[in-house]
Amino acid sequence: MKGSMIKPKRKKKAAARYWVGFDLGGTKMMATVYNGAFQPLASAKAKTQVNAGPRAVLGRIRETISTALAEAKAPPRGLSGIGVGCPGVLDLDRGIILEAPNLRWKRVPLRDLLSDWFHCRVVLANDVDAGTFGEYRFGAGRGARTLLGVFPGTGIGGGCVYDGQLLRGKTGSAMEIGHVPVRENGRLCGCGRRGCLEALAGRLAISAEVAQAVFRGEAPFLAANGGADLKKLKSGLLAKSIKAGDKAVERIIRDAMRLMGRAIGGVVNLLAPDVVVLGGGLIEAIPRLALAEVRLGLKETTMASFIRQLKVVEAQLGDDATTLGAAALAAEKA
Amino acid sequence: MKGSMIKPKRKKKAAARYWVGFDLGGTKMMATVYNGAFQPLASAKAKTQVNAGPRAVLGRIRETISTALAEAKAPPRGLSGIGVGCPGVLDLDRGIILEAPNLRWKRVPLRDLLSDWFHCRVVLANDVDAGTFGEYRFGAGRGARTLLGVFPGTGIGGGCVYDGQLLRGKTGSAMEIGHVPVRENGRLCGCGRRGCLEALAGRLAISAEVAQAVFRGEAPFLAANGGADLKKLKSGLLAKSIKAGDKAVERIIRDAMRLMGRAIGGVVNLLAPDVVVLGGGLIEAIPRLALAEVRLGLKETTMASFIRQLKVVEAQLGDDATTLGAAALAAEKA
Repeated sequence: MKGSMIKPKRKKKAAARYWVGFDLGGTKMMATVYNGAFQPLASAKAKTQVNAGPRAVLGRIRETISTALAEAKAPPRGLSGIGVGCPGVLDLDRGIILEAPNLRWKRVPLRDLLSDWFHCRVVLANDVDAGTFGEYRFGAGRGARTLLGVFPGTGIGGGCVYDGQLLRGKTGSAMEIGHVPVRENGRLCGCGRRGCLEALAGRLAISAEVAQAVFRGEAPFLAANGGADLKKLKSGLLAKSIKAGDKAVERIIRDAMRLMGRAIGGVVNLLAPDVVVLGGGLIEAIPRLALAEVRLGLKETTMASFIRQLKVVEAQLGDDATTLGAAALAAEKA
Repeated sequence: MKGSMIKPKRKKKAAARYWVGFDLGGTKMMATVYNGAFQPLASAKAKTQVNAGPRAVLGRIRETISTALAEAKAPPRGLSGIGVGCPGVLDLDRGIILEAPNLRWKRVPLRDLLSDWFHCRVVLANDVDAGTFGEYRFGAGRGARTLLGVFPGTGIGGGCVYDGQLLRGKTGSAMEIGHVPVRENGRLCGCGRRGCLEALAGRLAISAEVAQAVFRGEAPFLAANGGADLKKLKSGLLAKSIKAGDKAVERIIRDAMRLMGRAIGGVVNLLAPDVVVLGGGLIEAIPRLALAEVRLGLKETTMASFIRQLKVVEAQLGDDATTLGAAALAAEKA
């Protein structure tokens, strides 16, 4: 167009827009500022310190977001929205955290508080849903039609993006794959029922079985490194124990992952996803072993017509999935 | 307004519109013509007669729809669309029945055939999905936000309308609640896997258990009426046997319904519906007993936060659910 007499029309350059994704956990919190293309500009972290009480935690949330915005040099007027991944039971319509045992919160109107402080729209989402949406938009699930996300942590969280739409229950919680029944009269679950997947294959359940193996002298590496204390038997240590040759630990984890695969297969028969994304600490620690066993379990229960086009993959975004997904959800609703 | 000088403006009367809902089953077929308010104007039925081959069946489909239209005195130009509830694996995008073992069909482009014959738009849907959508729009699920439909027949079919949107897999089939795993190393299922709900609680599974009870002399009424023949042990006869005091039959059916309730509870934990609709022959034959046991099973596995707002109700539309739902789906896409 150089030298042309006719100038191409230019749109007025729009003011740069920013989004904040916030991950509110029981032990730590993180705010990340994204530009309009969802590239991260700056992050800030803090300990949640639940013991200090709700008011103190809310103050720290405000501070953490402000710090991230300042570091990103994002002018306040450009802030288009904040998305928050929250634990607990939510009232999505009114933007309230109804009950979050992790935080010891009841009825906190987080959406309106944030919106007063930062003068922008705020969207709350279940934390696992936000993480699932993050992987769908920017991670291992890009291009999927229907995506199932499964995140074994202390419990086992699940999320589903169905044909582009995040499936969310009325109270912000759905896809409780950790509480799908897998065994009649099975082990007692934290939710009060018996035989939930989580009670048999969650990290806490795994650690409890591993601790017994340690006690019985079947896991020499762990016996010398951490012992039978459930608080110490976390994913990283379990991975080391397998590497060091603790066969009993490997068997316990393989059985749990296979059982999880069986339960996921049942969900595949319901929702016919084309991609299952597995993430969370345990998967990150032993991705190959975990995915291999999940695939075996899946084959036992998934109908042939659904398994053909199914990909089972590891999550790509780690802790960023939640902030990215939350920010994208805030942007989507804008 | 009588005597007024000012005539009220009248909209030009639009030509009356009609929709056809078609239910294509392995043993019989039905076409119903609906007006724009989805009131039935006329119906026609025929035996499918699979043995006569695909060409003959297609001819009968054309004939049945034509008969219904003629009886409804619906002028051809008013026909806005045909919705078809089909069994088997579908290609929804291309409107093809890929494989329907019930019909012994492979790769039949039913949508284009119907659209050539009747010069209107045609929409295919899985038959259980159509029935679920029918109950959601016009039956027991009116006003629901998210509805789960469960229809125990020979197998156990499921469907879900999530927030107004019918959940459909890529191949027209999803919500295969009959193939959710409920028992590790359980009974062999028709799908080739073990421990599927259907293999333990479908009507065929129930009949097989009942036949054993008859053989062992535990069901005197049935022994005198029908015997141990699985083909004769259908829902109506099972209901009569319970009424006549065959305790063994009652126990078998109660156990199956309770197990089905447990599996439904797992699905509730995933999709957080506000209404579960139960339909199909067995439910129609013994609604009270079945719903009571399903509710008991549900309580064993559903999380407290989901069960609070959950209604479990009997389907209202019977066989009309499929034609109504299919017609409404055709209208929705128009």
